[in-house]
Amino acid sequence: MRAMFVLTAVVMLADAQPSLRDDAVRLKDAALTGLTAFPMLKELTAGGHRFSGSDGYERAVDWARRALTDAGADSVWLQPVMIPRWVRGPQERSVMTLSGKRHALSVRALGGSVGTGPAGVTGRVIEVRSLDEAAALGPRANGAIVFYNRAFDRTKVNTFEAYGGAVDQRGRGAIEAARVGAVAVLVRSMTNAADDLPHTGAMRYHDSIPKIPAAALGSESAERLSRALRTGTNVTVTLTMECRTMPDRASHTVIGEVRGSERPDEIVLLGAHLDSWDLGTGAHDDGSGVVQCIDVLSLFRRLGMRPKRTVRVVLFANEENGLRGARAYADFAEGSPQRHIAAIETDAGGFAPRGFTTDADSVRLRRLLDAVPLLDIVNAGTLRTGGGGADVDQIRTPGIVHFGLRPEDQRYFDHHHADSDTLGAVHPRELQLGSAAIAILAWYISESSL
Amino acid sequence: MRAMFVLTAVVMLADAQPSLRDDAVRLKDAALTGLTAFPMLKELTAGGHRFSGSDGYERAVDWARRALTDAGADSVWLQPVMIPRWVRGPQERSVMTLSGKRHALSVRALGGSVGTGPAGVTGRVIEVRSLDEAAALGPRANGAIVFYNRAFDRTKVNTFEAYGGAVDQRGRGAIEAARVGAVAVLVRSMTNAADDLPHTGAMRYHDSIPKIPAAALGSESAERLSRALRTGTNVTVTLTMECRTMPDRASHTVIGEVRGSERPDEIVLLGAHLDSWDLGTGAHDDGSGVVQCIDVLSLFRRLGMRPKRTVRVVLFANEENGLRGARAYADFAEGSPQRHIAAIETDAGGFAPRGFTTDADSVRLRRLLDAVPLLDIVNAGTLRTGGGGADVDQIRTPGIVHFGLRPEDQRYFDHHHADSDTLGAVHPRELQLGSAAIAILAWYISESSL
Repeated sequence: MRAMFVLTAVVMLADAQPSLRDDAVRLKDAALTGLTAFPMLKELTAGGHRFSGSDGYERAVDWARRALTDAGADSVWLQPVMIPRWVRGPQERSVMTLSGKRHALSVRALGGSVGTGPAGVTGRVIEVRSLDEAAALGPRANGAIVFYNRAFDRTKVNTFEAYGGAVDQRGRGAIEAARVGAVAVLVRSMTNAADDLPHTGAMRYHDSIPKIPAAALGSESAERLSRALRTGTNVTVTLTMECRTMPDRASHTVIGEVRGSERPDEIVLLGAHLDSWDLGTGAHDDGSGVVQCIDVLSLFRRLGMRPKRTVRVVLFANEENGLRGARAYADFAEGSPQRHIAAIETDAGGFAPRGFTTDADSVRLRRLLDAVPLLDIVNAGTLRTGGGGADVDQIRTPGIVHFGLRPEDQRYFDHHHADSDTLGAVHPRELQLGSAAIAILAWYISESSL
Repeated sequence: MRAMFVLTAVVMLADAQPSLRDDAVRLKDAALTGLTAFPMLKELTAGGHRFSGSDGYERAVDWARRALTDAGADSVWLQPVMIPRWVRGPQERSVMTLSGKRHALSVRALGGSVGTGPAGVTGRVIEVRSLDEAAALGPRANGAIVFYNRAFDRTKVNTFEAYGGAVDQRGRGAIEAARVGAVAVLVRSMTNAADDLPHTGAMRYHDSIPKIPAAALGSESAERLSRALRTGTNVTVTLTMECRTMPDRASHTVIGEVRGSERPDEIVLLGAHLDSWDLGTGAHDDGSGVVQCIDVLSLFRRLGMRPKRTVRVVLFANEENGLRGARAYADFAEGSPQRHIAAIETDAGGFAPRGFTTDADSVRLRRLLDAVPLLDIVNAGTLRTGGGGADVDQIRTPGIVHFGLRPEDQRYFDHHHADSDTLGAVHPRELQLGSAAIAILAWYISESSL
């Protein structure tokens, strides 16, 4: 909801803060000439994925500590947290048998799934479009593989809404299918892309219901399987994967901050998650967010800008399959004498920013109007109602306002949790405009008030 | 300049046009479920480039005529126009000699350049950053190759502004260099990308000044050459290219329209250019615009929406190196009894739309406020002051309002006029949101008034 013409008067008033405007322009110029976020992302992703419990994650902790120090943080510390450790097996495959002929399907285990054993699991396939349909199968599901095939609602312009409308199949699909006796589930990948990349992601079990293997199916494979079920008879699938859950591992969330010059006990938090899935290298999810947060400190340092309030970067452990880092930080924040003024999350991809969501109340929204022309300098002036993101929304200390960076999102779910989420999918200037947008908002909040 | 909070009242008023809002939602839904623009672009670009004077352009004329008919145009016709014919030679190369060692540079002739002859042109190299610096070389430039190396101003968020600030080197570089006796020019490519792709584009000569060969240099080659000039002595370059200009060729602009049900003599024009450069396949420039315009007619047909005013698609010949199609159409429009209400151009890439520029006067701008919430349905609600584009701005009939679709632009000049401007750089949903944005604006103008 935007309109520029009627707003001229308001915007002119807001523009009457010349020093903040100058600061925003300096941040934009330094960001776009330095282009420092992309080289950081190249370093971060060069080590492979950063999945919770992996050595790659531990290397990322070391890297982040160093990068925060290099970026000019006054202090850098590690917050301990026990994180889950689920390990994908060396082989994952699925074969559809249709009238005696075998066809390979493109699959990847969902995160947290049990394995199938070396012989795999075989069953006839029943296609459903929802958890309710699965539950309604009743005894017919006994011994079958339930195939969840509700695609993204393409009419949703916002792809995160489309994701939100489909992801219950991935999260609870195994529970509902097992409840009616299924032996495994295949879940159509959470994407609009017309390719065959499987997209992994978190799934859950109930302790009281049998744990059955769950895998993501590439979209083209899902279409192929669905066609086979419509035309053929007696379609069976064998799913083989050797994933397993191991004991939790001690690890860390990485934190670095620039101490505020006037109100050091008031915190403006910048948050992203340091872990990724174990496919691709998590360049967008959430490598981009990680380097953008670090880059904000680096911009302040290069420009000699010391914020009045403390700007703290929190690189959360284990967002993807547990939120353990965010919960540990939220506990810490609750017990801390410091006051969290705002928490800005960047976990929606490294694409060109469009604006921010926020849960600010009407009084604070009114004040935030002054920030809109500053954010418009980097094309990020669209404010909408919403939360900050999975990590920072865990922090519920009194008076905190959450913000979420909202980049252009059409390409995000092409790569999300898939092998293609790599550096090549990130554009240096788009990524950098995101850093600049966060820097401008953080500086505005630090210098003004909310 | 955008702000949502104060505007609620205005937006609520605007929302009080339920039927137009319903229409906009239907257009969005049909666009995003059909995704018809991308398959058209695949067809259009399968034939290679569509450079003016080439057989590829003539095949595109046939394709466009058919596509407009298929999309439901009531009438489709061809507007004759003589177009230039410049032909790139089979070999283009440049070699830098530095302390006796030879290094290849990545070059492509600029469009319209004379050739070098088979032996090539050799000269010592003088680097300049502007036309003024070239002019100031005076007799020192005699026999030299002038190397224009002013990069894009990276601090410009809008990449079209950065292009506008650098492209004089390409357009007039050969004239200014030849005036002081240079034998050829090399021009750093018009891009922010950190790669070595040369980007071609139009250049000009003066009849009274010697015509010297002009080539675009890849950015990395430009950096290499610049380093060599700073560190080495006696840097010479040999440039060889066999391009030539041939006689003009008779060709056509392709036009198709849906006749208005109430005011057929009032035209809402949708414009894009059918020609491309001869590198890549012009998928973004301007294949995207071409298929978006055709797609608008197809959306109207599929939804049974007949506009009150005539919606005319004009696919201009020869935008890239002559604007001949636009000039011929402007002459035609001037002599026509029909009234052009609005002309909407799409020639800024097939990326996710953000909004439109317009030269509407304040009275019409006031009315256009009602269209903003409709365009926001497809994230294209940002209206800014500006023209329509190179083609439609030629049409200057009384009362016409020009609009230009403004997509996200960070990636545009990575591909502009280069080998990488191919289908793979276009995203189906981003492209399709552009169609939807144009359809919504065209429908709004056709049903309301301006």
